[in-house]
Amino acid sequence: MIDKLIAGIRQKKAPVVVGLDPALAMIPPYILEHAFREFGQTLEGVGEAIFVFNKGIIDAVCDLIPAVKPQIAMYEQFGLPGMAAYKRTIDYAHEKDLVVIGDIKRGDIGSTSEAYARGHLGKVRIGDAVFAPFDEDIATVNPYLGTDGVEPFVKLCREEKKGIFVLVKTSNPSSGEFQDQLVDGHPLYELVAEKVDSWGKEAMGQSGYSRVGAVIGATYPRMGQELRDKMPHALILVPGYGAQGGKGADLAPYFQESGMGAIVNSSRGIIAAYKQELYAAYGPEGYADASRAAVLAMLADIRPAAGMV
Amino acid sequence: MIDKLIAGIRQKKAPVVVGLDPALAMIPPYILEHAFREFGQTLEGVGEAIFVFNKGIIDAVCDLIPAVKPQIAMYEQFGLPGMAAYKRTIDYAHEKDLVVIGDIKRGDIGSTSEAYARGHLGKVRIGDAVFAPFDEDIATVNPYLGTDGVEPFVKLCREEKKGIFVLVKTSNPSSGEFQDQLVDGHPLYELVAEKVDSWGKEAMGQSGYSRVGAVIGATYPRMGQELRDKMPHALILVPGYGAQGGKGADLAPYFQESGMGAIVNSSRGIIAAYKQELYAAYGPEGYADASRAAVLAMLADIRPAAGMV
Repeated sequence: MIDKLIAGIRQKKAPVVVGLDPALAMIPPYILEHAFREFGQTLEGVGEAIFVFNKGIIDAVCDLIPAVKPQIAMYEQFGLPGMAAYKRTIDYAHEKDLVVIGDIKRGDIGSTSEAYARGHLGKVRIGDAVFAPFDEDIATVNPYLGTDGVEPFVKLCREEKKGIFVLVKTSNPSSGEFQDQLVDGHPLYELVAEKVDSWGKEAMGQSGYSRVGAVIGATYPRMGQELRDKMPHALILVPGYGAQGGKGADLAPYFQESGMGAIVNSSRGIIAAYKQELYAAYGPEGYADASRAAVLAMLADIRPAAGMV
Repeated sequence: MIDKLIAGIRQKKAPVVVGLDPALAMIPPYILEHAFREFGQTLEGVGEAIFVFNKGIIDAVCDLIPAVKPQIAMYEQFGLPGMAAYKRTIDYAHEKDLVVIGDIKRGDIGSTSEAYARGHLGKVRIGDAVFAPFDEDIATVNPYLGTDGVEPFVKLCREEKKGIFVLVKTSNPSSGEFQDQLVDGHPLYELVAEKVDSWGKEAMGQSGYSRVGAVIGATYPRMGQELRDKMPHALILVPGYGAQGGKGADLAPYFQESGMGAIVNSSRGIIAAYKQELYAAYGPEGYADASRAAVLAMLADIRPAAGMV
């Protein structure tokens, strides 16, 4: 799936992923009202509204981008109906031939990580039947528990050609608290990066990139350069663009040759574009068109930084 | 909820939690067959079987222990029907007045952790209605993203009197890869422990323990002692007893005065007891009674180590 993602980046000239992280306050009132008329002011109503909202955005931007990244927490917060909206979103994105990056940040001891890996990237066998429960193409993984917590995901990268992005250096303000601590003179995130490189060697894709990639926040471009060099085969998922403060011009260090090697995520900046002054003319009914305009603006900002002409 | 947990430990003389981590292979065939007759060999069938299996164990052991700890990965692997079984298990354990520790190991950037915290420990407001989507009492939290990723959970510890256990030193073989790395001469897990102590000061319970506790694997008793001293107000959740190799006598360092200060988890050792030679006479139909016998044996092993008479 890393190969498919890279082909999509190349074909659409778009090293960009749209984060489908819908908060209740982002959903236009007309969508909420419609869903509440059918399901009441319930978790089911919100689940329906989230899916309808996402569908509009996917329809509006699917020809421009190779992938979407639903953040599972934004669905999980609404319980089972929220999780159902997550699954419907994955399935609909697949219908539109988009790569789905499940931003799940799971990670546990070996046997437990195996269950997560199976449920999200793999298959479960029940009697004679086989099911792919969530069926994302790629998942984000938390490395704090070490190799045995990551290995079950790497195994599915090898066997099912799925992909993962391991958290190396996150985009949030306090990411440095543990990740930047010096170990033998080098920050911990470098040690994680070395592991990503070594895990990745066991799961190389056809494209020259590994199926094991890394997350490095857009808010730390200097680190981006160092880490890029430490993980030459890793595709880098870059969150933190836009709402979290990162700018296109800062992102050049994350890229390798022409637009390859990194994929930049924007969530709020795209899906809630209609709430920005710049796109206010679209209005709530035009939220999906506003998202499309915001993707086009993001592409215009990112392509030069990526050296993509 | 940490207060309720501590009262339960005291009253039942049981610093013990049963991990409800059902793998398909643990569920007695008669339960699976019954569920499959109703729902087919489907994810729904497995979800039903998991719940029935858990219910039997909860009924058999609820008078002996203060809490259960469902490991969400074991449910999530079966998709939405698995998550529904997770929620039914939480609700049923609450009916039996057990504290529910959701072993979810979530952790993300601030705004995303907020969504996780709300969905698992908090409430969401939809119009005039308020819902508690998953409604665990306590959750496990991954600290890799630093304070802003943990703070939303701590906030609910303060405001809703919920509890968390932060991963400090996990029980798995490769936990040392990152957690043991020396930072200024001290292992990283000590730095995490210091943070747990400082987060915990903002959320003290009535019992003298903080609502912010720590996870320290049973497989590292020497570290247990050091960390116990660094976090005097933290209740310690100790996984890794039994199947993962920890023994009662090794656990004395995790405890403070008479049976207080720690709670030891056993999962496979209890819920799959009927598969052990020792309890084989119970047979698959007697799996719940076998679990009860295994809890009694565990209590006999743990109470002396905990100094509980």
